Amino acid sequence: MGTCSADLAALLGPNATAIAAADYICNKFSDASFAVDNTYLLFSAYLNFFMQLGFAMLCAGSVRSKNAISVMLTNVLDAAIAGLFYYLFGFAFAFGSPSNGGFIGRHNFGLESIPSSSFDYSNFLYHWAFAVSAAGIASGSMAERTQFVAYLIYSSFLTGFVYPVVSHWFWATDGWATAFRVDNGFLFGSGVIDFAGSGVIHMVGGVAGLWGALIEGPRIGRFDSSGRSVALRDHNATLVVLGTFILWFGWYGFNPGSFNKISGFYTSGNHYGQWSAVGRTAVTTTLAGCTSALTTLFGKWILTSRWDVTDFCSGLLGGFAAITAGCSVVEPWAAIICGFVAALVLISCNKLAEKVKYDDPLGAAQLHGGCGAWGVIFTALFASEKYVREVYPSRPVRYGLFMGGGGRLLAAHIIQILVIVGWVSATMGTLFYFLHKFGHLRVSADDEMADMDLTRQGRLAYVDHDEDESQKQGFK
Amino acid sequence: MGTCSADLAALLGPNATAIAAADYICNKFSDASFAVDNTYLLFSAYLNFFMQLGFAMLCAGSVRSKNAISVMLTNVLDAAIAGLFYYLFGFAFAFGSPSNGGFIGRHNFGLESIPSSSFDYSNFLYHWAFAVSAAGIASGSMAERTQFVAYLIYSSFLTGFVYPVVSHWFWATDGWATAFRVDNGFLFGSGVIDFAGSGVIHMVGGVAGLWGALIEGPRIGRFDSSGRSVALRDHNATLVVLGTFILWFGWYGFNPGSFNKISGFYTSGNHYGQWSAVGRTAVTTTLAGCTSALTTLFGKWILTSRWDVTDFCSGLLGGFAAITAGCSVVEPWAAIICGFVAALVLISCNKLAEKVKYDDPLGAAQLHGGCGAWGVIFTALFASEKYVREVYPSRPVRYGLFMGGGGRLLAAHIIQILVIVGWVSATMGTLFYFLHKFGHLRVSADDEMADMDLTRQGRLAYVDHDEDESQKQGFK
Amino acid sequence: MGTCSADLAALLGPNATAIAAADYICNKFSDASFAVDNTYLLFSAYLNFFMQLGFAMLCAGSVRSKNAISVMLTNVLDAAIAGLFYYLFGFAFAFGSPSNGGFIGRHNFGLESIPSSSFDYSNFLYHWAFAVSAAGIASGSMAERTQFVAYLIYSSFLTGFVYPVVSHWFWATDGWATAFRVDNGFLFGSGVIDFAGSGVIHMVGGVAGLWGALIEGPRIGRFDSSGRSVALRDHNATLVVLGTFILWFGWYGFNPGSFNKISGFYTSGNHYGQWSAVGRTAVTTTLAGCTSALTTLFGKWILTSRWDVTDFCSGLLGGFAAITAGCSVVEPWAAIICGFVAALVLISCNKLAEKVKYDDPLGAAQLHGGCGAWGVIFTALFASEKYVREVYPSRPVRYGLFMGGGGRLLAAHIIQILVIVGWVSATMGTLFYFLHKFGHLRVSADDEMADMDLTRQGRLAYVDHDEDESQKQGFK
Repeated sequence: MGTCSADLAALLGPNATAIAAADYICNKFSDASFAVDNTYLLFSAYLNFFMQLGFAMLCAGSVRSKNAISVMLTNVLDAAIAGLFYYLFGFAFAFGSPSNGGFIGRHNFGLESIPSSSFDYSNFLYHWAFAVSAAGIASGSMAERTQFVAYLIYSSFLTGFVYPVVSHWFWATDGWATAFRVDNGFLFGSGVIDFAGSGVIHMVGGVAGLWGALIEGPRIGRFDSSGRSVALRDHNATLVVLGTFILWFGWYGFNPGSFNKISGFYTSGNHYGQWSAVGRTAVTTTLAGCTSALTTLFGKWILTSRWDVTDFCSGLLGGFAAITAGCSVVEPWAAIICGFVAALVLISCNKLAEKVKYDDPLGAAQLHGGCGAWGVIFTALFASEKYVREVYPSRPVRYGLFMGGGGRLLAAHIIQILVIVGWVSATMGTLFYFLHKFGHLRVSADDEMADMDLTRQGRLAYVDHDEDESQKQGFK
Repeated sequence: MGTCSADLAALLGPNATAIAAADYICNKFSDASFAVDNTYLLFSAYLNFFMQLGFAMLCAGSVRSKNAISVMLTNVLDAAIAGLFYYLFGFAFAFGSPSNGGFIGRHNFGLESIPSSSFDYSNFLYHWAFAVSAAGIASGSMAERTQFVAYLIYSSFLTGFVYPVVSHWFWATDGWATAFRVDNGFLFGSGVIDFAGSGVIHMVGGVAGLWGALIEGPRIGRFDSSGRSVALRDHNATLVVLGTFILWFGWYGFNPGSFNKISGFYTSGNHYGQWSAVGRTAVTTTLAGCTSALTTLFGKWILTSRWDVTDFCSGLLGGFAAITAGCSVVEPWAAIICGFVAALVLISCNKLAEKVKYDDPLGAAQLHGGCGAWGVIFTALFASEKYVREVYPSRPVRYGLFMGGGGRLLAAHIIQILVIVGWVSATMGTLFYFLHKFGHLRVSADDEMADMDLTRQGRLAYVDHDEDESQKQGFK
Repeated sequence: MGTCSADLAALLGPNATAIAAADYICNKFSDASFAVDNTYLLFSAYLNFFMQLGFAMLCAGSVRSKNAISVMLTNVLDAAIAGLFYYLFGFAFAFGSPSNGGFIGRHNFGLESIPSSSFDYSNFLYHWAFAVSAAGIASGSMAERTQFVAYLIYSSFLTGFVYPVVSHWFWATDGWATAFRVDNGFLFGSGVIDFAGSGVIHMVGGVAGLWGALIEGPRIGRFDSSGRSVALRDHNATLVVLGTFILWFGWYGFNPGSFNKISGFYTSGNHYGQWSAVGRTAVTTTLAGCTSALTTLFGKWILTSRWDVTDFCSGLLGGFAAITAGCSVVEPWAAIICGFVAALVLISCNKLAEKVKYDDPLGAAQLHGGCGAWGVIFTALFASEKYVREVYPSRPVRYGLFMGGGGRLLAAHIIQILVIVGWVSATMGTLFYFLHKFGHLRVSADDEMADMDLTRQGRLAYVDHDEDESQKQGFK
């Protein structure tokens, strides 16, 4: 805005009133920009937050009915715990610049000094919703057998510390691995392009869930005495569809919302600007999800001769998790490739999980971890030079290997995957290990075999008949 | 913007810096306009898309529980198939100007040359959601007895070709019947005012569904051996309410969103502009739906002495389908008339359907076809001159017969109804006929009588009890 | 805008073309402002409206399954009845200035003269959604035993008259108790700061429900013959979670949306403006809800040793109801205090209700009435001077007692509570009394004992089995 006034004053004339006129006009401009950018970001944050309902419904529909309440409680808790911890610590660790050597932020605890010229409340709200997502992903992997107290502890730790630190590295302007840094000497002179978090959110949640599920082991009955896999059937496909579509809806906050601003020309005086990039991001997200959903549906049909709506749903989410990293910097046609491969990655990961007797009731580690990792790689292969220049204007441009950009971005992205796996394993893996060691991770076998909702939450999710009437009634 | 710069330069002064200042200022203006218009359109598109979840829940709640998964699968498929086909072909057929004589577009396949000065990605996303709706409507009519492969074929054909062509005729700036054409010699010197698609979407979906349902015939057991109607009861009223409210919510994207832009004064320097028209459209939509819902509820109470929440829901949707054509150009009081008559049309169509033994599990042909056709007529009767001038500024003004505008608009709208019925019958009717002839349309009687979800999708929608209990129960 | 042109013309030069240039530029500014403000308000209205689905799902999930349809019917009816009555009368009573001595508006019936310089259609839509909420709250208290005709009458009366009058007093620019009046001599030279309606909406709905539930008495079986409380169990926790999250999502329309506009600097040339206040309001809302949810969850765990997701949900909503009055004028840390106390208020009110044998199936009077009243008090204690100056610029500033603002605001707020309780009791209490006296309030004991959905709505909410199977099964 200082720039605006200076530029305009130079044109309007040399005198004091011209400078005042320029100030006046530029002020009005920036009023409109702030208003529209905040409208855009706030509503994106609302959509982003709404995904938590999607997770809750998806989880409730994917576990056995006796565990529906337990798993929903963990989902609603995520949102509330993250609300407090991300307010107190998380946002400061993630974006409180200047940071400790690019490792962790150290300002803005409890939103002190917010709003600033860099961040307004809308940014906090948006990133709080991201933190909730990371925790929500992990809870799926550990459904149906985890103690409530373990959940309280790891959810606080994940949303208040583990995830914020990762988001600082890759997203804060002074994070050590960010693509926003002009001077980034690390990572082969490249930075990591993980636009909306295939790595930062989906892999973090997926790897955390992986360790939790690995350490506590499969649910009782998931593999029979001879080691064969036994399907513990979903209890409600309607809830799965409901949850999946809410997640789809919310993903339009998650991906296109990650621009944070929607105003700003790319080609001045033309029709082309940030709004086009935001729209393109919504389109690439849609195409990747649709392709992955159809590929998974047909792929599973080839494998099992059955059309299954839940295959469609998990394929869709896998496609979304994959496109999240590169959604803003790839062409729509590339998004179709992204989705196609994401479906293959998802099917393979699920096969592998079954082979190694890894039990993840939601398949969250496979979907968010596996497809998320593919998304990180995909971005390094297909990021377009033009779009990278527009979306990350301040840095030396590195773009996709298959788009003629060389291998540096790919190398940086491989490092990203290793670093995320390492960090989350070191923190969350250790936490789960000690929780397990001291008997606080897994519920007792008796509790698990019994009606978990009844014993631990003291009620059943569904009581469709009144006591006295249930005897005499034929049907519901 | 060229206009803006020229106008402003004339005022600021004759010299080069004044021209540069005007450019600078106008650039800022148009930045704000693009940002706010795209924010408005993108969020409208998200709402519009979200309606597909509404259809899915409405369908799942309206069919017998054994078919809930099948019908949801068709709904989710619509969105994904349309994603690919509308990207590859549909959008080009609909809006790829200049077109082949106003019949079909022929540019922008695979979003080539998008964004342009006419269309940005947000327009594509918005119209993709429309295409999904058209297919979603048709699937309701054919629920509970249609082969999955038939579904794949007709959904692709409808979203990739049949619907896009219709939308080109009435909505593209060079469609032969559009109200946007300045030079429209066709249609009695009028054009068709079908703002958000009572004809273009609801009738297209309804007529397609009608042919499908007619050709495959009623569900087994829908009419008994003596020809009497047997209610195949809804299985879940909660899902019906859930779906209906999600559709209501989404309709605020569907109708007010159809302006595509929200900025622009109608009366310069005043408070009155496009935003007022957008708001008025939301109000007329609300009033028509509410009136129709209450009228249907009371009407059915008079007929059957029962208050039924699903009557309320279908009445509401009938009112929305009817107001969709004229929502932007009628007064709020007229919307109340629209809704009142829509309820009568809906009740009559349902009576008629029962009399002629037409079986449509969702009543989609009656609701979207019947009320949609009423909406087209209603617009020709009640469109206000003032609003038509504002919303369709470039054309010779034709407005409502009852508002003093003469009968030309009505004549044009009657043509629209005939043309849509003809085109959809010729394309979709033929397709369904051949699918039927070669045995690919309807499932076998055995499959239909059996648990369709179980035999064809390989699972049940609801498994509310765990294995140990399922032994003593028949199953659900 | 007049101001803008005058200011800018003074700077650009004294001649006619400079004045025209200033006009031209200011026009463009105000175009952008109108567009963004209406976008913001319309989408807030959509979210606000969407809350009604939240109420419907929450109610359906909280009553016994046999009453799910009845209660949903009341929820959907609210929206439709309010649509007509608020259009015909309600909006005029609420905002039709100049009013009758600050008591009731008397212009703009049927939206006459709208849009005006004060109100556009978006304002009507937004406030219609508010009216729906007030009625929706009351219906929860009276679920499972109220006649349908009683519902029709009181819902019309509440949305068309009782609520609009209250909203006129506290929200219209010439209401007698509004904080917007410059010249407010009443109320100790203060006005009431009830930003989004802890009093105006939540207390109105809660007190109305209280009288309805009190006058018709507890449900049969709610207290046993010895007077002990018997839990009539919730039938579906999944619907409770679904409804609660939809309400959470919608509350971002309810609270931050109440600014009506999002543009406008507070500190010119800086980054700080109305958008920051809107974002802060979203943050305080979030923090109050999260804190109250966690406090209620842990509080009930201490009392009952059970973790219950429905405690979390009601705690969350209690926190939201409480922060609604002060959401725009308190610091985020104060919102945490607000939520913490709201949980204690909620638990206490529920204990008290049980002790005095008050039966409210949704706990709506306790939650909306009790926590709403706390919210009114809380605002008078914690409103910050700075924020009050920004949000209510035209009035003599009164702010929170604990923030150094003295006791006048608290005194005014205590008056507000008394006035709302008095007015709603006098109107709704009287109405319920006469409905009861003439036998139109409560259903017969036979109907109540029987399957209410079946007898009065003629169908069951859930028919999960097809007829042929229903014979052999016990229950689901």
